[in-house]
Amino acid sequence: METPLTASSSNAAASRPRSNRERIIQSTIELMNLQGGNVGTSLIAEHGSISPGNLYYHFRNREEILREIFRRLETDLGRVLHIEDGESVDARRLAGFYTAGAHVLWQYRFLFASATEIIFRDPWLADEYEAFSRRSIDQISRILTDATRMHPGPLPASAADCVELAENKWVLWTGWPRHAEMRLRGRAVTEADFARGLEQIFGLLTPYLEAGYRRETARAIHHVVQTLDIDFPATA
Amino acid sequence: METPLTASSSNAAASRPRSNRERIIQSTIELMNLQGGNVGTSLIAEHGSISPGNLYYHFRNREEILREIFRRLETDLGRVLHIEDGESVDARRLAGFYTAGAHVLWQYRFLFASATEIIFRDPWLADEYEAFSRRSIDQISRILTDATRMHPGPLPASAADCVELAENKWVLWTGWPRHAEMRLRGRAVTEADFARGLEQIFGLLTPYLEAGYRRETARAIHHVVQTLDIDFPATA
Repeated sequence: METPLTASSSNAAASRPRSNRERIIQSTIELMNLQGGNVGTSLIAEHGSISPGNLYYHFRNREEILREIFRRLETDLGRVLHIEDGESVDARRLAGFYTAGAHVLWQYRFLFASATEIIFRDPWLADEYEAFSRRSIDQISRILTDATRMHPGPLPASAADCVELAENKWVLWTGWPRHAEMRLRGRAVTEADFARGLEQIFGLLTPYLEAGYRRETARAIHHVVQTLDIDFPATA
Repeated sequence: METPLTASSSNAAASRPRSNRERIIQSTIELMNLQGGNVGTSLIAEHGSISPGNLYYHFRNREEILREIFRRLETDLGRVLHIEDGESVDARRLAGFYTAGAHVLWQYRFLFASATEIIFRDPWLADEYEAFSRRSIDQISRILTDATRMHPGPLPASAADCVELAENKWVLWTGWPRHAEMRLRGRAVTEADFARGLEQIFGLLTPYLEAGYRRETARAIHHVVQTLDIDFPATA
C-alpha cells in the first residue's frame, strides 16, 4: 500500500453518490473531527441530511456507528503498515509508511483526540483499541528493524531500541493532530499542518539511519508535505 | 524546583481541611481525570459534597473553574521547567525535570486528554494554551541545549535539533497519560504506569548525551519510577 498522503480520496468521496449508511458514517467522522466526540445521533443525522428514522434503520445506536468507524481505522492502518516477510524497506517505501499512515490517522483523528469520551465508554472499543495499538507498534517496530538493519547509521539500533522507538513514534503520531490543532488555533487545522509534524517525527531516526538513505526518505516525505500545502490549504 | 514525582502532595491535600472553593477545584480535577471533560457543575458539586448554590457563589460557571485550573497548571509547570541563566543542568536536575514535570502533567491530565472538549470551547483557554505550549517547548529546549552542550554524546545536537527534540518531548509527555490509560484498560491507570513512559521518553536523548551522564540521569529517573510503583499501586 503506497497510497500517498493526499486529500484526493475525500474529494472523490464527496462527489460520488453515497448510500445512506455511508452518509451516516461520513457525517459522524466529519462532525466529530470538527467538534469532538460528544456529538449525538440527531446532529449526525442532520449533518448528513438523513432522517433520524433512517439513521436508526441502519444503526441501532451511536456506539454501533463508532464501532464501524473504528473497524475501518484498524483495516486502513493495518494495511498501510503491513510489510511482507523478507521485504526490504527502501527510502520511498519508508516515506510511504509515514505519509500514508499519517493520512489514515488524520482521517480518523477524533478517535484519538476524544479517546476518553469515545473509547472508554465502550468496553468492546477499549479492548479493540488496546490490541490495535499493540499491533500497530509491532508493525512499526518491524519496519524500523528492517530499515535500520539494512541502512545502519552512526549509532546501532538494537531490537529493544526499535520497540522503544516504535512506541514513541506511535504516541507522537497519534498525538500530533491535536497538538497541531492547539498550536494553530485561530484557523482550522489542515492535513498539511499535521503533515509538517511528520518531518519532525521522522527526525527521531536520524542517529540510526545511513545519511544518504535518511536524506532520500526525508526528501520524499517533504515532497508530499509540500504538495499538500499547495493543493489543500482549506481542508478542515 | 526539584519536587520529586510522588503522590504525597495529593495525599496531604486529601487529609487537610479545604475551603469550599478549593474543594470545588479538586472535585473538578478528580472527576474529569476519571470521566473526561464533559462533567457538569451539578456532578462536580455532588462529588465535592458542596451545594450547587455554594458552587455558584464561588464560580460563575464551569468555564471559570476550568480557567482557574489551567492557571495552576501553567504556574506549576512553568516553575518546574524554569532554569536560571547560566545554570548548569547536572544529572540529578535533569532527572528532576522529567519526574516533577510528569507529576504536574499527571495531576492535570484531563486537560490534555479532553483538549477538544475543554480547550477549544473557550477562546481564552485556547489562546492561553497555545502560549503555554510554546513557552513550555522553549523551556524544554533551553534545558536540552544546556545538557547536550555540557555533556555532549556521540552525536552533536544543534540548536535546531534541541528545538525539534523539545517539541517531540512535549507531544510525548502530554500524550503519554492517555496512551498509558489505553494500554492498561481493565484496571485504573496509576501515576506509576505513566511514569514508566518517562524512561522511554528520556531515551530520545541517548545519541546526544555523554554515556556516564546519561546513565546517571536514567538511574535517577528509574529510582523515582520504582518508588512510585511500590508505594502507590492503586492511585487512580
